[in-house]
Amino acid sequence: MSAEANACYRMVIAYDGTSYHGWQLQPQLETVQGELTRALEELTGERPRIRAAGRTDAGAHAHGQVIAFGLSSDWDPSALQGGCQARLPEDIGVLETTRVGSDFHPRRMAWRRTYRYVIRDGVSADPVGQRYEWWVPDRVEEAPMRSAARLLLGTHDFATFGTSPVGSGSTTRTVDRADVERVGGLLRLEIRADAFLRGMMRSFAGALVAVGRGRASVADLARALAEPGRRTPAWEVAPARGLHQWRVEYRASATPVQP
Amino acid sequence: MSAEANACYRMVIAYDGTSYHGWQLQPQLETVQGELTRALEELTGERPRIRAAGRTDAGAHAHGQVIAFGLSSDWDPSALQGGCQARLPEDIGVLETTRVGSDFHPRRMAWRRTYRYVIRDGVSADPVGQRYEWWVPDRVEEAPMRSAARLLLGTHDFATFGTSPVGSGSTTRTVDRADVERVGGLLRLEIRADAFLRGMMRSFAGALVAVGRGRASVADLARALAEPGRRTPAWEVAPARGLHQWRVEYRASATPVQP
Repeated sequence: MSAEANACYRMVIAYDGTSYHGWQLQPQLETVQGELTRALEELTGERPRIRAAGRTDAGAHAHGQVIAFGLSSDWDPSALQGGCQARLPEDIGVLETTRVGSDFHPRRMAWRRTYRYVIRDGVSADPVGQRYEWWVPDRVEEAPMRSAARLLLGTHDFATFGTSPVGSGSTTRTVDRADVERVGGLLRLEIRADAFLRGMMRSFAGALVAVGRGRASVADLARALAEPGRRTPAWEVAPARGLHQWRVEYRASATPVQP
Repeated sequence: MSAEANACYRMVIAYDGTSYHGWQLQPQLETVQGELTRALEELTGERPRIRAAGRTDAGAHAHGQVIAFGLSSDWDPSALQGGCQARLPEDIGVLETTRVGSDFHPRRMAWRRTYRYVIRDGVSADPVGQRYEWWVPDRVEEAPMRSAARLLLGTHDFATFGTSPVGSGSTTRTVDRADVERVGGLLRLEIRADAFLRGMMRSFAGALVAVGRGRASVADLARALAEPGRRTPAWEVAPARGLHQWRVEYRASATPVQP
């Protein structure tokens, strides 16, 4: 993790992103990485560089974000977790803490990432839970959304749906799960991919909801996939509040997949 | 509703109570009644006296609170609802608006009230949703909770579990539903009664969780019911954040039940 680190730790964390300017450390702004760095510094006297499996946008939430950092002092994982949690606000939680080898890199070694997007459709928003869902004041039909979601499966250049996190990097990604379900009156979209472009999940949600509202067709989505980056999408990007980072999977061998 | 009112309205509202000092109007403090009064005043130029089916505590939530008020000017219910919603913060929502007769009283005429209480048990709190649930860091067993919940059914003097909202009023109430369910990993308690004492639902939740954790017995609860007001309960009152006002039912004839 870092040259002087004697012990490296992996944590699984969750957060309600409503009050934060996203994951990444920024001067003068409250961010999740900033809160975690402060909590670890208060606890250990060190200020570790924290890596995450992926960044999240301002207002988006995480249920299974994976982070890693090194410390020069050795800590019992459960004492580290308890001490860190005690110094965090209650909208950030540490779910698991384990030791890892110094070569563990939570982003590069991630094998699959899963995101969920939650939509409430109908005449009224629900004030209880509104910070976790996108309210669409129309009926959104699941059947066309499912047909559209199936088009996302496989390896595509998703340039119309997002940008590479590394400047001029590839915009090709592989989606291996794209489910649309209605759960307790809410629509839930679940996408699993090797990696996500910046904005990709919110763009997927915007596209599928446009199809479910009858404002775009499955054919529109097929054209956007066939001609990557050529056209301005005919749908809005869904708001961050409905976006939930859900899970990161690693191979048992943890071979880097994005060297 | 009031002497000069020409038209009376009934609204069903919902709110996330986290940011409010409860339902009731208080000077200098943000309350749900205060926000609704302000929104209606901005919209109509009148400052109506709003009645509610029941007060809720600071930090508790509502999904089906029933309110009523009179206005001297006549409003189309859907214009009133839309205009009011546009002037409310997004943690308060208006779900329904109808005209009612001037004799409608949302508290006195309520026939049954339902409250839910949500508990998360286990090693970690969930930062996403923590404002809507009580996190108990132990396993809470449902079977003894169900046995305890059955004791609450029927007409009892619940003086050990709460206080009358009207000073020296009766502390006898009738509970006709007391269900404990596990839904999506969370424990959900649902109680329906003719009316609730102040603090009663949070005290029920505290008592049943104490039984589910093995810190109190079903017999302790039976004794508290048999000797009303005689003993200090052996359990803590559950926090407001897990409390959800759920529904108010009225008889078709809407005969007052608490004259």
